[in-house]
Amino acid sequence: MSFKDNLTEIVDRIEGSAAAAILGIDGLLIERYLKDMDPSLDLELIAIEFTNLLRRSMRTASDTELGDLREMVIATDRLTFLLRPITTEYFLLLALNPGGNVGRARFELRKTQLALEPEFAI
Amino acid sequence: MSFKDNLTEIVDRIEGSAAAAILGIDGLLIERYLKDMDPSLDLELIAIEFTNLLRRSMRTASDTELGDLREMVIATDRLTFLLRPITTEYFLLLALNPGGNVGRARFELRKTQLALEPEFAI
Repeated sequence: MSFKDNLTEIVDRIEGSAAAAILGIDGLLIERYLKDMDPSLDLELIAIEFTNLLRRSMRTASDTELGDLREMVIATDRLTFLLRPITTEYFLLLALNPGGNVGRARFELRKTQLALEPEFAI
Repeated sequence: MSFKDNLTEIVDRIEGSAAAAILGIDGLLIERYLKDMDPSLDLELIAIEFTNLLRRSMRTASDTELGDLREMVIATDRLTFLLRPITTEYFLLLALNPGGNVGRARFELRKTQLALEPEFAI
């Protein structure tokens, strides 16, 4: 199964999904799949900005003795984002349109992370 | 109902709750209620660090044309945090121990935000 297949599968399984991506912690886009995302939004810019937020959150978790960061959910007016580290170097990003099922998305993202982890653990 | 009552109510309603707080976006602690939080963790430090993250996320949402930030969930090894702005100046923070019900916590936090909003809209 290719990375694109993983992303397509997760997006198709979750009602209200807009897009999914695999990113490097340096902001590099490894793979992405857009399904139903408002074309006025810039996924590349969003991915870079949210990579910065994720990096900062990982640092905050470790600075405050909370251990590793497992997951982040950021809900805004227009989209809700779920971010989940695959390893310390790569992470999954999922964007949901308003009304999308956040609970289901968290569950599916965890499953996909577990499936991808061995492939990124180099 | 005092702010302390609001926090006590929300913490007591959600299984696995560790603590709840009302904070200013400047990091000022308005009120807090600790129920079952690992005493080795420093809630004051955590609150300051997560206020920084929230501020940065609000800015990211607006910089990327996503509108207002509605909610943040940050899951770490030791605690999961839910942050929800009450107004642009104040927000709610809820900490859950591992195994706590994130879905229920999101629901209760939204209710509490709606109840508190009129009191903070000055």
